[in-house]
Amino acid sequence: MQLGMIGLGRMGADLVRRLMRHGHQCVVHDVHPSAIAALQQEGATGAASLDQMMSLLEGPRILWLMVPAAAVEAALADLGPRLAPGDIVIDGGNSYYRDDMRRSVELGARGVHFIDVGTSGGIAGLARGYCLMIGGEEDVVVYLTPLFTALASTTDGVAKPKPDGIGRTMGLDAPTAASGYLYCGLSGAGHFVKMIHNGIEYGMMAAYSEGLNILKCANIGAQQGAADAEVTPLHHPEYYQYTFNLADIAEVWRHGSVIDSWLLGKVAEVLRTDPTLAQFAGHVSDSGEGRWSIEAAIDEAVPAPVLSAALYARFSSRGQSVFADQLLSAMRYAFGGHVDLAVPVTPRDA
Amino acid sequence: MQLGMIGLGRMGADLVRRLMRHGHQCVVHDVHPSAIAALQQEGATGAASLDQMMSLLEGPRILWLMVPAAAVEAALADLGPRLAPGDIVIDGGNSYYRDDMRRSVELGARGVHFIDVGTSGGIAGLARGYCLMIGGEEDVVVYLTPLFTALASTTDGVAKPKPDGIGRTMGLDAPTAASGYLYCGLSGAGHFVKMIHNGIEYGMMAAYSEGLNILKCANIGAQQGAADAEVTPLHHPEYYQYTFNLADIAEVWRHGSVIDSWLLGKVAEVLRTDPTLAQFAGHVSDSGEGRWSIEAAIDEAVPAPVLSAALYARFSSRGQSVFADQLLSAMRYAFGGHVDLAVPVTPRDA
Amino acid sequence: MQLGMIGLGRMGADLVRRLMRHGHQCVVHDVHPSAIAALQQEGATGAASLDQMMSLLEGPRILWLMVPAAAVEAALADLGPRLAPGDIVIDGGNSYYRDDMRRSVELGARGVHFIDVGTSGGIAGLARGYCLMIGGEEDVVVYLTPLFTALASTTDGVAKPKPDGIGRTMGLDAPTAASGYLYCGLSGAGHFVKMIHNGIEYGMMAAYSEGLNILKCANIGAQQGAADAEVTPLHHPEYYQYTFNLADIAEVWRHGSVIDSWLLGKVAEVLRTDPTLAQFAGHVSDSGEGRWSIEAAIDEAVPAPVLSAALYARFSSRGQSVFADQLLSAMRYAFGGHVDLAVPVTPRDA
Amino acid sequence: MQLGMIGLGRMGADLVRRLMRHGHQCVVHDVHPSAIAALQQEGATGAASLDQMMSLLEGPRILWLMVPAAAVEAALADLGPRLAPGDIVIDGGNSYYRDDMRRSVELGARGVHFIDVGTSGGIAGLARGYCLMIGGEEDVVVYLTPLFTALASTTDGVAKPKPDGIGRTMGLDAPTAASGYLYCGLSGAGHFVKMIHNGIEYGMMAAYSEGLNILKCANIGAQQGAADAEVTPLHHPEYYQYTFNLADIAEVWRHGSVIDSWLLGKVAEVLRTDPTLAQFAGHVSDSGEGRWSIEAAIDEAVPAPVLSAALYARFSSRGQSVFADQLLSAMRYAFGGHVDLAVPVTPRDA
Repeated sequence: MQLGMIGLGRMGADLVRRLMRHGHQCVVHDVHPSAIAALQQEGATGAASLDQMMSLLEGPRILWLMVPAAAVEAALADLGPRLAPGDIVIDGGNSYYRDDMRRSVELGARGVHFIDVGTSGGIAGLARGYCLMIGGEEDVVVYLTPLFTALASTTDGVAKPKPDGIGRTMGLDAPTAASGYLYCGLSGAGHFVKMIHNGIEYGMMAAYSEGLNILKCANIGAQQGAADAEVTPLHHPEYYQYTFNLADIAEVWRHGSVIDSWLLGKVAEVLRTDPTLAQFAGHVSDSGEGRWSIEAAIDEAVPAPVLSAALYARFSSRGQSVFADQLLSAMRYAFGGHVDLAVPVTPRDA
Repeated sequence: MQLGMIGLGRMGADLVRRLMRHGHQCVVHDVHPSAIAALQQEGATGAASLDQMMSLLEGPRILWLMVPAAAVEAALADLGPRLAPGDIVIDGGNSYYRDDMRRSVELGARGVHFIDVGTSGGIAGLARGYCLMIGGEEDVVVYLTPLFTALASTTDGVAKPKPDGIGRTMGLDAPTAASGYLYCGLSGAGHFVKMIHNGIEYGMMAAYSEGLNILKCANIGAQQGAADAEVTPLHHPEYYQYTFNLADIAEVWRHGSVIDSWLLGKVAEVLRTDPTLAQFAGHVSDSGEGRWSIEAAIDEAVPAPVLSAALYARFSSRGQSVFADQLLSAMRYAFGGHVDLAVPVTPRDA
Repeated sequence: MQLGMIGLGRMGADLVRRLMRHGHQCVVHDVHPSAIAALQQEGATGAASLDQMMSLLEGPRILWLMVPAAAVEAALADLGPRLAPGDIVIDGGNSYYRDDMRRSVELGARGVHFIDVGTSGGIAGLARGYCLMIGGEEDVVVYLTPLFTALASTTDGVAKPKPDGIGRTMGLDAPTAASGYLYCGLSGAGHFVKMIHNGIEYGMMAAYSEGLNILKCANIGAQQGAADAEVTPLHHPEYYQYTFNLADIAEVWRHGSVIDSWLLGKVAEVLRTDPTLAQFAGHVSDSGEGRWSIEAAIDEAVPAPVLSAALYARFSSRGQSVFADQLLSAMRYAFGGHVDLAVPVTPRDA
Repeated sequence: MQLGMIGLGRMGADLVRRLMRHGHQCVVHDVHPSAIAALQQEGATGAASLDQMMSLLEGPRILWLMVPAAAVEAALADLGPRLAPGDIVIDGGNSYYRDDMRRSVELGARGVHFIDVGTSGGIAGLARGYCLMIGGEEDVVVYLTPLFTALASTTDGVAKPKPDGIGRTMGLDAPTAASGYLYCGLSGAGHFVKMIHNGIEYGMMAAYSEGLNILKCANIGAQQGAADAEVTPLHHPEYYQYTFNLADIAEVWRHGSVIDSWLLGKVAEVLRTDPTLAQFAGHVSDSGEGRWSIEAAIDEAVPAPVLSAALYARFSSRGQSVFADQLLSAMRYAFGGHVDLAVPVTPRDA
């Protein structure tokens, strides 16, 4: 098929490459001409402007937006007047599903189809394919199947167990799910499912991080406990004398354990390369999906303590709890005369 | 009654003062001679050594230990050989209730009574009296009643509503509870109840701190959002334009609200004195009770998410999550090429 | 002053009573005629309809809405066409602050003033006065001062320490805060502060509940442990042999402890009256403020683990985690062949 | 090698099968004769008693205990007098690492070697091999290598990328880790690492469960909201109209997403087989490792909010929060007259 890609960052460019490998024709545009030029060299057709892109695409046009969530509104404002009835706009980024709902109505009023696609896979997606969660009008999604099979993780459209024979889902009756893409429902459904995917991702990442942090500190009993009177002494230092090799532990867990995962492969990799992680300050960003997942949980009155804790750890890592912490110290001083530490036990940026 | 106080820090010295005000005779000892001298000037009898203290007290002796939890074992080792059958040792500090159990057996084998007293009230206790949670042999506790009534918050031994008539407990049938001291059960019961008291204290303190932190940041929509691409933009800045006076808010809550408390008085006080809390770095200490509360919850299989979250916030405030945070950043980089912030949004020690 | 009260439920009726005690004139309306009749007997002027109410009030009219948050929109729709420029509408319920913002603009366009008042105090407020958190145009709030001083907890408008001399805030310079009412800021500010008040309330309630639950289960070591192979045996049953009197413990904490509070008085009261709490099924409701507090925390990127955990405990108490729990059991069975319990350890409705 | 296996439950029997497949000679014992008989038919040598087992094994004997953690102490008491210097005892179950430390000293005093092995893999381990985390004397572990390579996930002892080429750890320099077994350190190290493995497992399981629960309830806006006045109405029902196919979603995430894992395979499998999970009551058990992980975190002062939340969800699922919930309802009634629900929103056992 022929497709116009708007936004040629890390993800957009790789999507184009994978589409071209599967024989699709790509017209590409970005605010940075160099990004266009790079993909032109790989076989894409560059479009210096939206107008040029529209003229290069045959109707009904298929336009894939791959821009930051915060830039989608402006991109659609630019694109809108140029669209014709029958055209299809795909938002493959990390948009809020409620924005999808509104946008599909707005564009639908003018005969334009709007499809939301949650795209997971990161920088590995180019090689192994992406996981696609799709929302919008079902017949439009079916029409776009050739694009999805090209991008998805398993591309032959047939349910297939993983090569290692492990974790195979029995009784598969949803061939597309097993092929790495799924029609999830009406407008917004794709980004809703992607939102929860990311919420779970935060929880899994935090589970590994907390567990490995406990392992890292398992030698605390061997450290010189210059006992601060305000901090409890360790009752049994003899139980905390282990110096673990975290990289090896992450690696061994990848082979036959219950907690093996794709993310664990990344954990093992980063610990192997940089065991102290000294290059990372640890002020962890969060994109919107983790927040919106909690918002959905609360709207639905569904408890989500793990996903919330994972999100809050990121907020705290960025210094957002400092005032609350100061207030705790202030209270302790006011009621008990306690004087807290002037410097942290573990300096963050040492 | 006559009592020997060992440990004349903030709490020990004030206990002596309050006991003397109620006519009790105090022999006092501390490792710092100046602490002994200060109380001598207020009417106590100083003892330069444990031997001198033992000779100054009439049998059966009553000895009150008021030393850090980590120092109790050594203090009892010093004291042990000097004790005679019938003597009573009271541990009024923040000891682990399991240590009480062991110590009461060890001392009991030699005819010495061991009583554990959880003491709450902080530096305000001298003026308003303490809340005492008591464990050990019941007849010994009854024998010590004159000391407890002197120290406790309401000293006439009669159930009495609070002066403001608010929050009065109906149908009181436990006069000592309403008088500020309570026999809680066999050895360790006093410190067990005090342990949970402190666990709850952590939870309450965190509730106020989190709530006021949200109020403090309610003007985030008015700040220059130099939108970092890795952090979600605020969807509706117009909803976060409030600049609240936190000291006034803490104060107004003290008058008729559901969340009024003694701690809230402290919150209002510290915010009035130092609205930015700049003198506090916010590396919050924790004594053992908060930790042991969680340990008890887990042993009992009782969920304690609020008390745990409050404890963990203190750990994080001291930099103990840094490695976990670094690992999150490292994973984000490894799977998505994301580059996290080099400096926190809110510098802790600015 | 003269005021029209719309909504004569628990809170609305008591507000009217307290206003009348302070000499204010109240015209009252409710959808239930009996509620009107009851207050008429106490001296209020009944209005059978909104039209009648409007005609009974002199302009500029003051109208206080005290209806459920979900009913405010309809009430304003009814009221709107009847309002004249200069009239003042006060929403004293638990509305979402964002609705206040919108409503103040809508009514403001027609010259009507809209004031939002967060009202705390519960059924005790009639006797001891309410805590009022107020938002809207400042000059209108000042104009309404006689109403607020009548309703507030300390009514003479002078900063006054509490009768028991405890917890007095030093250096007060905000007389109205110390009098139980506070102008918090522009439209929505009152309900924003009340929202966080309730968020904190949830956290405090959960702290007490968790702590007392740990105390209640402190005798677990004495119970017949018909050891289920799927549940860890208690390593040290000898440490969990206490049978605590929770009512006495709650009571003693009210006298001199750090965790004394108005809520603790309620805890002591309910445990005294009904030690097993058998009359309560424990499916705990939540009003909107707890949820909106978390939403605000997330929008501001402020960690709120304690407030969230408190909210989630309520969701779980209503059975909202059941599917998640089932999925955990299903996973355990799938990967390890583990068979979980058919009935809970502690039957909820026994 | 020749090995005696004591305990022929699910795990013990499969370990024997896998060892025999790799040419090792197994003498087997269990308290149930039928378990012995079953493995005899598959080629093992049955031992009706410990005495018989000891006589069938050549010295130095290798004995592998695979019994519940609570039964290890009794098993060692039986075994102890029968052991000779040079014999090796391996505890492959889920023992507490502190017990390992003590046992290795006790047995070591008599010349017996004690090795602790954390064994992950569940019922899939027989086919794909186990992940082994090993502690004790290093030279003894090296001596046992043939057993570990037989049991481990990748059995040729050479670092090998996974078949699908995904998640390969770069720069491997720990061949045994990449082969599915790892020497972690001195006595207890194996079970310490396994303990944290299970802590992480709980966190991951909870992350999936919470996320899928949010997806399951995404149609809440379409349900008849017989608005209970005590529960907040949904502001925007139009945003919660999705009915998702959870089995398909779990499946699609297995193909190229960031949250793919071995556990996710199990999730997809159980949802495919039984979409409503009606066969599971959802009273989730927990073995000791999850609890001990939190205990270690607290001893080390390392925050573990996600792992704790996951553990607490299991406690709550078993009804352990009921008293706390009842107390919340009781407080709400006492201060505000609120009457909570008599039945849960989602009946657990419906």
